Amino acid sequence: MMRRGFQWAARLGHHRALPGALHILPGFTPSSAFGSSVDSLVSRFCLEKTDLKDYALPNASWCPDMLSLYQEFLEKTKTDGWIKLPSFKSNRDHIQGLKLPSGLAVTSDKSDWRIFTRCIQVEGQGYEYVIFFHPSKKKSVCLFQPGPYLEGAPGFAHGGSLAAMMDETFSKTAYLAGEGLFTLSLNIRFKNLIPVGSLAVLNTNVEKIEDQKLYMSCVTQSRDQKTVYAKCSGVFLQLQLEQE
Amino acid sequence: MMRRGFQWAARLGHHRALPGALHILPGFTPSSAFGSSVDSLVSRFCLEKTDLKDYALPNASWCPDMLSLYQEFLEKTKTDGWIKLPSFKSNRDHIQGLKLPSGLAVTSDKSDWRIFTRCIQVEGQGYEYVIFFHPSKKKSVCLFQPGPYLEGAPGFAHGGSLAAMMDETFSKTAYLAGEGLFTLSLNIRFKNLIPVGSLAVLNTNVEKIEDQKLYMSCVTQSRDQKTVYAKCSGVFLQLQLEQE
Repeated sequence: MMRRGFQWAARLGHHRALPGALHILPGFTPSSAFGSSVDSLVSRFCLEKTDLKDYALPNASWCPDMLSLYQEFLEKTKTDGWIKLPSFKSNRDHIQGLKLPSGLAVTSDKSDWRIFTRCIQVEGQGYEYVIFFHPSKKKSVCLFQPGPYLEGAPGFAHGGSLAAMMDETFSKTAYLAGEGLFTLSLNIRFKNLIPVGSLAVLNTNVEKIEDQKLYMSCVTQSRDQKTVYAKCSGVFLQLQLEQE
Repeated sequence: MMRRGFQWAARLGHHRALPGALHILPGFTPSSAFGSSVDSLVSRFCLEKTDLKDYALPNASWCPDMLSLYQEFLEKTKTDGWIKLPSFKSNRDHIQGLKLPSGLAVTSDKSDWRIFTRCIQVEGQGYEYVIFFHPSKKKSVCLFQPGPYLEGAPGFAHGGSLAAMMDETFSKTAYLAGEGLFTLSLNIRFKNLIPVGSLAVLNTNVEKIEDQKLYMSCVTQSRDQKTVYAKCSGVFLQLQLEQE
Protein backbone atom coordinates (compact mmCIF):
# COMPACT_ATOMS: atom_id res chain seq x y z
CA MET A 1 0.00 0.00 0.00
CA MET A 2 2.70 2.44 1.02
CA ARG A 3 4.82 1.41 -1.93
CA ARG A 4 1.99 1.98 -4.41
CA GLY A 5 1.29 5.34 -2.81
CA PHE A 6 4.87 6.38 -3.17
CA GLN A 7 5.06 5.24 -6.79
CA TRP A 8 1.95 7.17 -7.60
CA ALA A 9 3.22 10.35 -5.97
CA ALA A 10 6.54 9.94 -7.73
CA ARG A 11 4.91 9.39 -11.12
CA LEU A 12 2.66 12.42 -10.80
CA GLY A 13 5.67 14.32 -9.55
CA HIS A 14 7.38 13.86 -12.89
CA HIS A 15 4.33 14.81 -14.90
CA ARG A 16 4.85 18.13 -16.63
CA ALA A 17 1.42 19.50 -15.74
CA LEU A 18 1.85 18.77 -12.05
CA PRO A 19 5.27 19.97 -10.92
CA GLY A 20 6.49 18.97 -7.49
CA ALA A 21 5.50 16.00 -5.42
CA LEU A 22 1.74 15.65 -5.23
CA HIS A 23 -0.02 13.72 -2.55
CA ILE A 24 -3.51 14.28 -1.23
CA LEU A 25 -2.93 12.53 2.08
CA PRO A 26 -0.49 9.90 3.30
CA GLY A 27 -1.62 6.43 2.31
CA PHE A 28 -4.05 7.84 -0.24
CA THR A 29 -3.70 5.75 -3.40
CA PRO A 30 -5.68 5.48 -6.60
CA SER A 31 -7.06 2.11 -7.55
CA SER A 32 -5.32 0.45 -10.45
CA ALA A 33 -8.57 -0.91 -11.86
CA PHE A 34 -11.59 1.20 -12.83
CA GLY A 35 -14.36 -1.33 -13.03
CA SER A 36 -17.50 0.71 -12.48
CA SER A 37 -19.49 1.58 -15.57
CA VAL A 38 -21.06 5.02 -15.97
CA ASP A 39 -24.48 3.34 -15.73
CA SER A 40 -23.73 1.70 -12.38
CA LEU A 41 -22.25 4.95 -11.02
CA VAL A 42 -25.35 6.87 -12.13
CA SER A 43 -27.82 4.34 -10.70
CA ARG A 44 -26.02 4.37 -7.36
CA PHE A 45 -25.92 8.19 -7.38
CA CYS A 46 -29.52 8.78 -8.40
CA LEU A 47 -31.27 6.78 -5.69
CA GLU A 48 -34.80 5.89 -6.77
CA LYS A 49 -36.10 5.71 -3.22
CA THR A 50 -34.72 7.97 -0.54
CA ASP A 51 -35.92 10.11 2.33
CA LEU A 52 -33.11 12.59 1.71
CA LYS A 53 -34.16 16.07 0.66
CA ASP A 54 -33.24 16.90 -2.91
CA TYR A 55 -32.15 20.56 -3.03
CA ALA A 56 -32.06 20.63 -6.82
CA LEU A 57 -35.78 21.23 -7.22
CA PRO A 58 -37.57 24.44 -8.21
CA ASN A 59 -38.59 26.85 -5.46
CA ALA A 60 -40.24 30.27 -5.33
CA SER A 61 -36.89 32.07 -5.62
CA TRP A 62 -36.05 30.70 -9.07
CA CYS A 63 -36.14 33.34 -11.80
CA PRO A 64 -38.32 32.68 -14.89
CA ASP A 65 -35.24 31.88 -17.03
CA MET A 66 -34.07 29.25 -14.53
CA LEU A 67 -37.53 27.70 -14.28
CA SER A 68 -38.13 27.49 -18.00
CA LEU A 69 -34.68 26.04 -18.80
CA TYR A 70 -35.19 23.53 -15.97
CA GLN A 71 -38.46 22.43 -17.61
CA GLU A 72 -36.74 22.22 -20.97
CA PHE A 73 -34.05 19.88 -19.61
CA LEU A 74 -36.64 17.89 -17.69
CA GLU A 75 -38.29 17.14 -21.03
CA LYS A 76 -34.90 16.03 -22.37
CA THR A 77 -34.61 13.50 -19.54
CA LYS A 78 -37.58 11.70 -21.10
CA THR A 79 -36.39 11.71 -24.70
CA ASP A 80 -32.75 12.64 -25.03
CA GLY A 81 -30.77 10.67 -22.43
CA TRP A 82 -30.24 13.51 -19.95
CA ILE A 83 -30.44 12.76 -16.23
CA LYS A 84 -31.36 15.22 -13.50
CA LEU A 85 -28.92 14.73 -10.64
CA PRO A 86 -30.24 14.85 -7.08
CA SER A 87 -28.38 17.18 -4.72
CA PHE A 88 -28.27 16.20 -1.07
CA LYS A 89 -27.13 18.14 1.97
CA SER A 90 -23.75 16.43 2.19
CA ASN A 91 -21.44 14.33 0.04
CA ARG A 92 -21.78 11.78 2.84
CA ASP A 93 -25.30 11.15 1.46
CA HIS A 94 -24.04 10.84 -2.11
CA ILE A 95 -21.48 8.16 -1.28
CA GLN A 96 -23.58 6.15 1.19
CA GLY A 97 -22.26 2.61 1.52
CA LEU A 98 -18.93 3.49 -0.06
CA LYS A 99 -15.60 3.52 1.71
CA LEU A 100 -13.25 6.46 1.43
CA PRO A 101 -9.59 5.72 0.71
CA SER A 102 -7.25 5.14 3.62
CA GLY A 103 -6.25 8.44 5.23
CA LEU A 104 -9.66 9.97 4.58
CA ALA A 105 -11.57 8.21 7.34
CA VAL A 106 -14.44 10.31 8.64
CA THR A 107 -13.77 10.95 12.31
CA SER A 108 -17.21 12.08 13.41
CA ASP A 109 -20.67 12.22 11.96
CA LYS A 110 -22.23 14.18 14.79
CA SER A 111 -21.73 17.65 13.35
CA ASP A 112 -24.13 19.39 11.03
CA TRP A 113 -22.08 18.91 7.87
CA ARG A 114 -23.06 20.47 4.58
CA ILE A 115 -21.59 20.34 1.12
CA PHE A 116 -20.27 23.85 0.51
CA THR A 117 -22.61 24.63 -2.40
CA ARG A 118 -25.61 23.85 -0.15
CA CYS A 119 -24.28 25.81 2.83
CA ILE A 120 -27.06 28.42 2.89
CA GLN A 121 -30.49 27.13 3.82
CA VAL A 122 -32.71 30.12 3.02
CA GLU A 123 -34.18 29.67 -0.45
CA GLY A 124 -32.82 32.12 -2.98
CA GLN A 125 -30.25 33.73 -0.67
CA GLY A 126 -27.31 31.51 -1.56
CA TYR A 127 -26.71 28.83 -4.15
CA GLU A 128 -29.63 27.78 -6.30
CA TYR A 129 -28.58 25.19 -8.85
CA VAL A 130 -29.45 21.98 -10.59
CA ILE A 131 -27.15 19.76 -12.64
CA PHE A 132 -28.25 17.69 -15.64
CA PHE A 133 -25.84 14.99 -16.79
CA HIS A 134 -25.64 13.11 -20.10
CA PRO A 135 -23.89 9.75 -19.50
CA SER A 136 -23.02 8.81 -23.08
CA LYS A 137 -21.92 12.31 -24.06
CA LYS A 138 -20.01 12.68 -20.78
CA LYS A 139 -21.24 16.23 -20.36
CA SER A 140 -23.26 18.27 -17.87
CA VAL A 141 -25.28 21.45 -17.80
CA CYS A 142 -25.62 23.28 -14.50
CA LEU A 143 -28.29 25.96 -14.08
CA PHE A 144 -26.96 28.37 -11.46
CA GLN A 145 -28.67 31.34 -9.84
CA PRO A 146 -26.48 33.18 -7.30
CA GLY A 147 -28.33 34.83 -4.42
CA PRO A 148 -27.44 38.01 -2.46
CA TYR A 149 -25.28 36.05 0.03
CA LEU A 150 -22.92 35.18 -2.81
CA GLU A 151 -22.00 38.77 -3.52
CA GLY A 152 -18.60 40.13 -4.50
CA ALA A 153 -18.84 43.53 -6.21
CA PRO A 154 -22.15 45.08 -5.12
CA GLY A 155 -24.99 43.46 -7.07
CA PHE A 156 -22.83 40.75 -8.66
CA ALA A 157 -21.75 37.22 -7.75
CA HIS A 158 -18.34 36.80 -6.12
CA GLY A 159 -15.79 35.23 -8.48
CA GLY A 160 -15.12 32.66 -5.77
CA SER A 161 -18.77 31.58 -5.71
CA LEU A 162 -18.63 30.86 -9.44
CA ALA A 163 -15.27 29.09 -9.03
CA ALA A 164 -16.86 26.83 -6.39
CA MET A 165 -19.91 26.19 -8.59
CA MET A 166 -17.68 25.19 -11.51
CA ASP A 167 -15.57 22.97 -9.24
CA GLU A 168 -18.70 21.28 -7.89
CA THR A 169 -20.17 20.73 -11.37
CA PHE A 170 -16.82 19.34 -12.54
CA SER A 171 -16.70 17.15 -9.46
CA LYS A 172 -20.09 15.48 -9.92
CA THR A 173 -19.53 15.13 -13.68
CA ALA A 174 -16.04 13.68 -13.24
CA TYR A 175 -17.29 11.20 -10.65
CA LEU A 176 -20.17 9.94 -12.78
CA ALA A 177 -18.26 9.96 -16.06
CA GLY A 178 -15.19 8.15 -14.76
CA GLU A 179 -14.75 8.03 -11.00
CA GLY A 180 -12.99 11.40 -10.93
CA LEU A 181 -12.92 12.23 -7.26
CA PHE A 182 -10.44 14.97 -6.41
CA THR A 183 -9.67 18.30 -8.01
CA LEU A 184 -6.02 18.54 -8.97
CA SER A 185 -6.23 21.90 -10.72
CA LEU A 186 -8.56 24.66 -11.83
CA ASN A 187 -7.75 27.31 -14.39
CA ILE A 188 -10.35 30.08 -14.62
CA ARG A 189 -10.68 33.09 -16.92
CA PHE A 190 -13.36 35.55 -15.81
CA LYS A 191 -14.97 37.52 -18.64
CA ASN A 192 -18.09 39.22 -17.23
CA LEU A 193 -19.82 39.54 -13.88
CA ILE A 194 -23.01 37.57 -13.15
CA PRO A 195 -25.82 39.78 -11.77
CA VAL A 196 -27.18 38.42 -8.48
CA GLY A 197 -30.55 36.70 -9.01
CA SER A 198 -30.00 35.94 -12.68
CA LEU A 199 -29.35 32.62 -14.44
CA ALA A 200 -25.91 31.45 -15.50
CA VAL A 201 -25.54 28.24 -17.49
CA LEU A 202 -22.44 26.09 -16.97
CA ASN A 203 -21.75 23.88 -19.99
CA THR A 204 -19.34 21.23 -18.80
CA ASN A 205 -17.50 18.55 -20.76
CA VAL A 206 -15.09 15.71 -20.08
CA GLU A 207 -12.45 16.40 -22.72
CA LYS A 208 -10.40 13.25 -22.17
CA ILE A 209 -9.55 10.58 -19.61
CA GLU A 210 -5.88 9.70 -19.55
CA ASP A 211 -3.35 8.40 -17.05
CA GLN A 212 -5.95 8.22 -14.22
CA LYS A 213 -6.88 11.85 -14.78
CA LEU A 214 -9.99 13.47 -16.21
CA TYR A 215 -9.55 16.69 -18.16
CA MET A 216 -12.62 18.88 -17.89
CA SER A 217 -13.79 22.12 -19.52
CA CYS A 218 -16.58 24.54 -18.68
CA VAL A 219 -18.03 27.62 -20.34
CA THR A 220 -20.37 29.65 -18.12
CA GLN A 221 -22.66 31.96 -20.04
CA SER A 222 -26.05 33.62 -20.16
CA ARG A 223 -28.98 31.60 -21.43
CA ASP A 224 -28.93 33.38 -24.81
CA GLN A 225 -25.18 32.61 -25.04
CA LYS A 226 -24.49 36.26 -25.81
CA THR A 227 -22.54 36.86 -22.60
CA VAL A 228 -19.69 34.58 -21.51
CA TYR A 229 -19.16 34.87 -17.75
CA ALA A 230 -16.15 32.58 -17.40
CA LYS A 231 -14.19 29.78 -18.99
CA CYS A 232 -12.60 27.10 -16.89
CA SER A 233 -10.53 23.97 -17.30
CA GLY A 234 -9.94 21.44 -14.56
CA VAL A 235 -8.11 18.19 -13.92
CA PHE A 236 -9.55 15.51 -11.63
CA LEU A 237 -7.94 12.42 -10.19
CA GLN A 238 -9.63 9.04 -10.63
CA LEU A 239 -10.10 7.06 -7.45
CA GLN A 240 -12.33 4.03 -7.17
CA LEU A 241 -14.45 3.89 -4.02
CA GLU A 242 -15.02 0.40 -2.66
CA GLN A 243 -18.19 -0.92 -1.05
CA GLU A 244 -18.15 -0.87 2.70
CA MET B 1 -16.11 57.00 -22.74
CA MET B 2 -17.32 54.40 -25.20
CA ARG B 3 -14.22 54.87 -27.32
CA ARG B 4 -11.89 54.32 -24.36
CA GLY B 5 -13.91 51.26 -23.39
CA PHE B 6 -13.58 49.81 -26.84
CA GLN B 7 -9.85 50.54 -27.00
CA TRP B 8 -9.34 48.90 -23.65
CA ALA B 9 -11.26 45.78 -24.64
CA ALA B 10 -9.41 45.61 -27.92
CA ARG B 11 -6.03 45.99 -26.21
CA LEU B 12 -6.72 43.27 -23.66
CA GLY B 13 -8.12 41.17 -26.49
CA HIS B 14 -4.70 41.11 -28.11
CA HIS B 15 -2.87 40.30 -24.90
CA ARG B 16 -1.49 36.77 -25.04
CA ALA B 17 -2.59 35.86 -21.52
CA LEU B 18 -6.18 36.89 -22.16
CA PRO B 19 -7.33 35.47 -25.49
CA GLY B 20 -10.60 36.66 -26.94
CA ALA B 21 -12.38 39.92 -26.34
CA LEU B 22 -12.60 40.71 -22.65
CA HIS B 23 -15.08 43.11 -21.21
CA ILE B 24 -16.52 43.12 -17.70
CA LEU B 25 -19.57 45.14 -18.61
CA PRO B 26 -20.44 47.63 -21.34
CA GLY B 27 -19.11 51.08 -20.54
CA PHE B 28 -16.80 49.67 -17.90
CA THR B 29 -13.41 51.34 -18.32
CA PRO B 30 -10.26 51.48 -16.25
CA SER B 31 -9.01 54.86 -15.20
CA SER B 32 -5.90 55.99 -16.98
CA ALA B 33 -4.46 57.54 -13.81
CA PHE B 34 -3.83 55.68 -10.57
CA GLY B 35 -3.44 58.44 -8.05
CA SER B 36 -4.28 56.79 -4.76
CA SER B 37 -1.36 55.84 -2.56
CA VAL B 38 -1.37 52.57 -0.64
CA ASP B 39 -1.53 54.62 2.58
CA SER B 40 -4.67 56.48 1.54
CA LEU B 41 -6.31 53.27 0.35
CA VAL B 42 -5.50 51.57 3.66
CA SER B 43 -6.72 54.47 5.80
CA ARG B 44 -10.00 54.61 3.90
CA PHE B 45 -10.37 50.81 4.18
CA CYS B 46 -9.52 50.53 7.87
CA LEU B 47 -12.07 52.95 9.30
CA GLU B 48 -11.01 54.09 12.76
CA LYS B 49 -14.55 54.77 13.87
CA THR B 50 -17.39 52.65 12.64
CA ASP B 51 -20.52 50.96 13.93
CA LEU B 52 -20.09 48.17 11.41
CA LYS B 53 -19.44 44.73 12.84
CA ASP B 54 -15.95 43.42 12.17
CA TYR B 55 -16.19 39.68 11.44
CA ALA B 56 -12.41 39.20 11.52
CA LEU B 57 -12.20 38.97 15.30
CA PRO B 58 -11.60 35.87 17.44
CA ASN B 59 -14.62 33.88 18.60
CA ALA B 60 -15.15 30.69 20.58
CA SER B 61 -14.96 28.53 17.44
CA TRP B 62 -11.35 29.44 16.61
CA CYS B 63 -8.92 26.55 17.08
CA PRO B 64 -5.84 27.11 19.28
CA ASP B 65 -3.53 27.38 16.23
CA MET B 66 -5.72 30.10 14.71
CA LEU B 67 -5.92 32.03 17.98
CA SER B 68 -2.20 31.94 18.69
CA LEU B 69 -1.16 32.91 15.15
CA TYR B 70 -3.70 35.74 15.29
CA GLN B 71 -2.07 37.00 18.49
CA GLU B 72 1.36 36.69 16.88
CA PHE B 73 0.32 38.85 13.93
CA LEU B 74 -1.46 41.30 16.21
CA GLU B 75 1.90 41.86 17.90
CA LYS B 76 3.45 42.46 14.49
CA THR B 77 0.90 45.23 13.83
CA LYS B 78 2.57 47.16 16.66
CA THR B 79 6.17 46.67 15.60
CA ASP B 80 6.51 45.33 12.11
CA GLY B 81 4.19 47.34 9.85
CA TRP B 82 1.45 44.73 9.51
CA ILE B 83 -2.19 45.88 9.48
CA LYS B 84 -5.19 43.81 10.54
CA LEU B 85 -7.91 44.33 7.95
CA PRO B 86 -11.49 44.70 9.13
CA SER B 87 -14.04 42.47 7.44
CA PHE B 88 -17.56 43.79 7.07
CA LYS B 89 -20.76 42.06 6.02
CA SER B 90 -20.70 43.42 2.48
CA ASN B 91 -18.26 45.01 0.06
CA ARG B 92 -20.79 47.88 0.03
CA ASP B 93 -19.45 48.74 3.49
CA HIS B 94 -15.83 48.52 2.35
CA ILE B 95 -16.30 51.00 -0.48
CA GLN B 96 -18.60 53.47 1.29
CA GLY B 97 -18.51 56.88 -0.38
CA LEU B 98 -16.96 55.49 -3.54
CA LYS B 99 -18.64 55.29 -6.90
CA LEU B 100 -18.61 52.10 -8.95
CA PRO B 101 -17.73 52.39 -12.62
CA SER B 102 -20.51 53.02 -15.10
CA GLY B 103 -22.40 49.80 -15.83
CA LEU B 104 -22.00 48.58 -12.25
CA ALA B 105 -24.63 50.80 -10.64
CA VAL B 106 -26.22 49.16 -7.62
CA THR B 107 -29.90 48.84 -8.39
CA SER B 108 -31.23 48.18 -4.89
CA ASP B 109 -29.89 48.26 -1.36
CA LYS B 110 -32.96 46.76 0.26
CA SER B 111 -31.86 43.13 0.17
CA ASP B 112 -29.80 41.42 2.82
CA TRP B 113 -26.56 41.38 0.87
CA ARG B 114 -23.46 39.58 2.12
CA ILE B 115 -19.98 39.21 0.79
CA PHE B 116 -19.71 35.53 -0.15
CA THR B 117 -16.98 34.71 2.36
CA ARG B 118 -19.22 36.02 5.18
CA CYS B 119 -22.34 34.24 3.94
CA ILE B 120 -22.75 31.97 6.97
CA GLN B 121 -23.65 33.70 10.21
CA VAL B 122 -23.23 30.89 12.75
CA GLU B 123 -19.76 31.14 14.31
CA GLY B 124 -17.47 28.31 13.30
CA GLN B 125 -19.87 26.69 10.82
CA GLY B 126 -18.66 28.47 7.72
CA TYR B 127 -15.79 30.80 6.94
CA GLU B 128 -13.63 31.93 9.83
CA TYR B 129 -10.79 34.12 8.60
CA VAL B 130 -8.75 37.21 9.20
CA ILE B 131 -6.41 38.96 6.77
CA PHE B 132 -3.23 40.81 7.78
CA PHE B 133 -1.74 43.13 5.15
CA HIS B 134 1.76 44.62 4.89
CA PRO B 135 1.57 47.82 2.78
CA SER B 136 5.26 48.30 1.97
CA LYS B 137 5.89 44.60 1.27
CA LYS B 138 2.63 44.39 -0.73
CA LYS B 139 1.81 41.04 0.85
CA SER B 140 -0.94 39.49 2.96
CA VAL B 141 -1.39 36.57 5.28
CA CYS B 142 -4.88 35.13 5.69
CA LEU B 143 -5.65 32.80 8.59
CA PHE B 144 -8.48 30.55 7.42
CA GLN B 145 -10.44 27.95 9.36
CA PRO B 146 -13.10 26.16 7.28
CA GLY B 147 -16.20 25.01 9.16
CA PRO B 148 -18.45 21.98 8.53
CA TYR B 149 -20.67 23.94 6.10
CA LEU B 150 -17.68 24.27 3.76
CA GLU B 151 -17.33 20.55 3.24
CA GLY B 152 -16.38 18.75 0.03
CA ALA B 153 -15.06 15.23 0.70
CA PRO B 154 -16.41 14.15 4.10
CA GLY B 155 -14.38 15.87 6.83
CA PHE B 156 -12.44 18.15 4.46
CA ALA B 157 -12.96 21.63 3.01
CA HIS B 158 -14.43 21.83 -0.50
CA GLY B 159 -11.85 22.88 -3.07
CA GLY B 160 -14.23 25.64 -4.12
CA SER B 161 -14.30 27.10 -0.61
CA LEU B 162 -10.52 27.42 -0.68
CA ALA B 163 -10.65 28.84 -4.21
CA ALA B 164 -13.06 31.52 -2.97
CA MET B 165 -10.90 32.25 0.08
CA MET B 166 -7.82 32.71 -2.11
CA ASP B 167 -9.80 34.91 -4.52
CA GLU B 168 -11.05 37.05 -1.64
CA THR B 169 -7.58 37.39 -0.10
CA PHE B 170 -6.17 38.29 -3.52
CA SER B 171 -9.00 40.76 -3.99
CA LYS B 172 -8.46 42.72 -0.77
CA THR B 173 -4.66 42.62 -1.22
CA ALA B 174 -4.85 43.74 -4.85
CA TYR B 175 -7.20 46.59 -3.96
CA LEU B 176 -5.03 47.93 -1.15
CA ALA B 177 -1.72 47.37 -2.92
CA GLY B 178 -2.73 48.99 -6.20
CA GLU B 179 -6.44 49.42 -6.78
CA GLY B 180 -6.83 45.93 -8.21
CA LEU B 181 -10.56 45.47 -8.34
CA PHE B 182 -11.62 42.59 -10.55
CA THR B 183 -10.36 39.03 -10.91
CA LEU B 184 -9.33 38.32 -14.48
CA SER B 185 -7.95 34.85 -13.87
CA LEU B 186 -7.20 32.24 -11.22
CA ASN B 187 -4.91 29.27 -11.65
CA ILE B 188 -5.05 26.79 -8.78
CA ARG B 189 -3.10 23.60 -8.07
CA PHE B 190 -4.53 21.57 -5.19
CA LYS B 191 -1.98 19.48 -3.28
CA ASN B 192 -3.63 18.28 -0.06
CA LEU B 193 -7.04 18.48 1.56
CA ILE B 194 -7.67 20.85 4.50
CA PRO B 195 -9.35 19.10 7.45
CA VAL B 196 -12.51 20.92 8.55
CA GLY B 197 -11.89 22.93 11.75
CA SER B 198 -8.14 23.25 11.27
CA LEU B 199 -6.04 26.27 10.35
CA ALA B 200 -4.77 26.97 6.85
CA VAL B 201 -2.43 29.91 6.24
CA LEU B 202 -2.64 31.78 2.92
CA ASN B 203 0.63 33.57 2.12
CA THR B 204 -0.21 36.06 -0.59
CA ASN B 205 2.07 38.32 -2.62
CA VAL B 206 1.76 40.95 -5.32
CA GLU B 207 4.39 39.72 -7.77
CA LYS B 208 4.22 42.67 -10.15
CA ILE B 209 1.99 45.48 -11.37
CA GLU B 210 2.13 45.97 -15.11
CA ASP B 211 -0.13 47.24 -17.85
CA GLN B 212 -3.01 47.98 -15.41
CA LYS B 213 -2.87 44.44 -14.08
CA LEU B 214 -1.70 43.01 -10.78
CA TYR B 215 -0.07 39.58 -10.80
CA MET B 216 -0.67 37.74 -7.53
CA SER B 217 0.57 34.51 -5.99
CA CYS B 218 -0.61 32.50 -3.00
CA VAL B 219 0.68 29.43 -1.19
CA THR B 220 -1.81 27.90 1.25
CA GLN B 221 -0.20 25.66 3.85
CA SER B 222 -0.35 24.35 7.39
CA ARG B 223 1.03 26.54 10.15
CA ASP B 224 4.23 24.44 10.41
CA GLN B 225 4.64 24.78 6.61
CA LYS B 226 5.03 21.01 6.30
CA THR B 227 1.82 20.54 4.32
CA VAL B 228 1.04 22.60 1.23
CA TYR B 229 -2.69 22.65 0.58
CA ALA B 230 -2.71 24.63 -2.66
CA LYS B 231 -0.78 27.03 -4.83
CA CYS B 232 -2.55 29.74 -6.76
CA SER B 233 -1.75 32.56 -9.13
CA GLY B 234 -4.19 35.29 -10.08
CA VAL B 235 -4.42 38.38 -12.25
CA PHE B 236 -6.46 41.41 -11.18
CA LEU B 237 -7.52 44.45 -13.15
CA GLN B 238 -6.77 47.92 -11.80
CA LEU B 239 -9.75 50.25 -11.66
CA GLN B 240 -9.77 53.53 -9.77
CA LEU B 241 -12.95 54.21 -7.81
CA GLU B 242 -13.96 57.86 -7.65
CA GLN B 243 -15.47 59.67 -4.68
CA GLU B 244 -19.23 59.99 -4.87
